[in-house]
Amino acid sequence: MKFYDCATAPSPRLVRMFIAEKGLSNSIETIEVDLREKEQMNDAFRAINPFLTVPALETDDGAIFLTSQGCWRYLEEAHPDPALLGRDATEKALVADAVWRAEQDGFLAVGEALRNTAKGMKDRALTGPHNHAQIAELGERGKRRVGHFFELLDTTMAEQPFMAGENFSAADIMAFVAVEFAGWLKLSIPEDAAHAQRWFNTVKTRPSASV
Amino acid sequence: MKFYDCATAPSPRLVRMFIAEKGLSNSIETIEVDLREKEQMNDAFRAINPFLTVPALETDDGAIFLTSQGCWRYLEEAHPDPALLGRDATEKALVADAVWRAEQDGFLAVGEALRNTAKGMKDRALTGPHNHAQIAELGERGKRRVGHFFELLDTTMAEQPFMAGENFSAADIMAFVAVEFAGWLKLSIPEDAAHAQRWFNTVKTRPSASV
Repeated sequence: MKFYDCATAPSPRLVRMFIAEKGLSNSIETIEVDLREKEQMNDAFRAINPFLTVPALETDDGAIFLTSQGCWRYLEEAHPDPALLGRDATEKALVADAVWRAEQDGFLAVGEALRNTAKGMKDRALTGPHNHAQIAELGERGKRRVGHFFELLDTTMAEQPFMAGENFSAADIMAFVAVEFAGWLKLSIPEDAAHAQRWFNTVKTRPSASV
Repeated sequence: MKFYDCATAPSPRLVRMFIAEKGLSNSIETIEVDLREKEQMNDAFRAINPFLTVPALETDDGAIFLTSQGCWRYLEEAHPDPALLGRDATEKALVADAVWRAEQDGFLAVGEALRNTAKGMKDRALTGPHNHAQIAELGERGKRRVGHFFELLDTTMAEQPFMAGENFSAADIMAFVAVEFAGWLKLSIPEDAAHAQRWFNTVKTRPSASV
């Protein structure tokens, strides 16, 4: 198996952290794709992923998965223990809900804010093969949404220890990486959001948070 | 099991079509939530889904799933046959990839275009409990992205019969509903996109496309 990674980027970190939680960090070959050098635009990488994004995961049979969701699903099915996408039907569905929420309202909201404001991303307001110009109002909207996400984290963690309930799951990976990604915008969980702070500090101590 | 639906809206249609493919249409109680009457904003529905969206799916044990991804996952695990989220590890991951792509680049692109241009949605540029003003440039961007999605459908279907490969899956439901949703914007698959047309017409003839 080959994992196309970029040490400085948040999207592949979702898979790198998942791999670490599975205990597979030393058994999967990692290929670094330097996004700052635009290596993902090269013909060699374009042949692997025409959407020009990392993460990507290639199996020994030659199947290639091009989204964090696809990479996660393969790893979960091929290496079920420990479960990160839920154990029974109900928990699997609650994890799916929580992953979607953390991605849409957290991870992608941060991306919306960053990509529509960063000086180096004038025509790169979305990832992928098509250029899109920045929209200033969208950058502002993104920042407001990140604030709402922090509120959601706090109300969620007032009720339960982790994003999808009692157990750590991939939804916590999505939400944790989103919070750290928000640091690029100098946005962070408010100090008085005690429940969200407790959850964040708990996840931060996991070895997978440092890979 | 209770399914909170809205006959006129695209998001719950994703689950309604999935239920029909599973052969479960007559065994799940459906509760209609009239979005045109803003019933999703009522206190009664707010207690079921604080995100104020349909679909929602409630099990007999009282678990509630609030995204199409969560509803799909529960139904797939509880009623595995026929598989709509893939059968082996590789196919499950390819379906996850294709669902994500069809949702982000298709379904949500249509929503971005519609919600940022429709007269009746001035402050409803995103679903959920927070109001967001329309952004005209985002409406235009959404329409361009829908065009890119039709191109992606055509190049995908030039290589394979369905979104995730050889078999019909939930990714086809996502893409098909996205295409029909684009009709609200008077956008449709170009006539010369023969591969995408072939796929669309194949899915259109399935009984689940009419529920």
